[in-house]
Amino acid sequence: MAAAEFWYEFASTYSYPAAMRVGALAAARGVELAWRPFLLGPIFAAQGWRDSPFNLYPAKGRYMWRDLERICEALELPFKRPEPFPQNSLLAARVALALEAAERAAFSREVYAAEFGEGRLIADRATLGAALLKVGADPEAALIRAESDAIKALLKTETARAAALGVIGAPCLTTADGEAFWGNDRLEQGLDWARTRSG
Amino acid sequence: MAAAEFWYEFASTYSYPAAMRVGALAAARGVELAWRPFLLGPIFAAQGWRDSPFNLYPAKGRYMWRDLERICEALELPFKRPEPFPQNSLLAARVALALEAAERAAFSREVYAAEFGEGRLIADRATLGAALLKVGADPEAALIRAESDAIKALLKTETARAAALGVIGAPCLTTADGEAFWGNDRLEQGLDWARTRSG
Repeated sequence: MAAAEFWYEFASTYSYPAAMRVGALAAARGVELAWRPFLLGPIFAAQGWRDSPFNLYPAKGRYMWRDLERICEALELPFKRPEPFPQNSLLAARVALALEAAERAAFSREVYAAEFGEGRLIADRATLGAALLKVGADPEAALIRAESDAIKALLKTETARAAALGVIGAPCLTTADGEAFWGNDRLEQGLDWARTRSG
Repeated sequence: MAAAEFWYEFASTYSYPAAMRVGALAAARGVELAWRPFLLGPIFAAQGWRDSPFNLYPAKGRYMWRDLERICEALELPFKRPEPFPQNSLLAARVALALEAAERAAFSREVYAAEFGEGRLIADRATLGAALLKVGADPEAALIRAESDAIKALLKTETARAAALGVIGAPCLTTADGEAFWGNDRLEQGLDWARTRSG
């Protein structure tokens, strides 16, 4: 079966519409999707950035917020600009990694909806707990597992693997034959590639 | 009639497929398109960049070249990576501005084909002269007009206007109601907006 990995960062703005779209797009193409939360911080740091490029380059930031607003409007997704930006996504990423595949995808969508749809803080354990409850997971158990040494180490490994696969931003799709497709606007192209060109 | 401005920079990689696609896309939507050559240099300098971000950030550059290769393959456009990159696009932009609308679009496509399809140097007067001949313009007259004070000043004004319109990169479509759509992958969205939402 065709397969692709979907790399996303909970603080990433364009990962919000991508997370809401990618499941249906993959299913329609018969592509098996692996949800891969990771951290952009180490990848940006390697390029010399200590903050989001959207903050470092205000003109890019202004463009991105308007662009995201238009995208959400077209998709009929609620949008509320989170403050502060970027949010601290470390705990959310660890929780996502601590969940099994089906719960992980659903939980991730709930986190994005809370963050960019309602403007809630995703570093807040209450926000994550509510998202876990919504997808039928046990919040207390998931949060304990999320902060285990094994999950902390796994998030580092996954982030290093993302960098090695050529992931330079989020969201990003990677395919078995070594291609990377960066951006919400490349989901269709990446999934088409996975279906027709990749192993 | 719906209208949009198409901002492009001759040294810009993604402007190549965009220039080859945008005319037919606009015509299919009944959008009147104004071709607006400008220079990215002053816009990048305002963000603190003295070189292409694709050179300043090698990981982004590697991604872009592969991405462009895939895009050209899908569009069946010849692709040859120009060396050096970015090329000096000043004279090409002046020549384009010195031409009337119909010649300007055709000339611009010829320049991109020479630069990214054949790897030719676009600062070379012979390259520009050949492109002018192909579109039925008088090379000598066009080059003299291109280096007049009026055209030099116009290119500066146009570049300042691009920045004021929110153009942060190339290619970019702007609409009468103040929207900017950045990227080859946003041509359809920008033209749809011009047709349905803009005055």
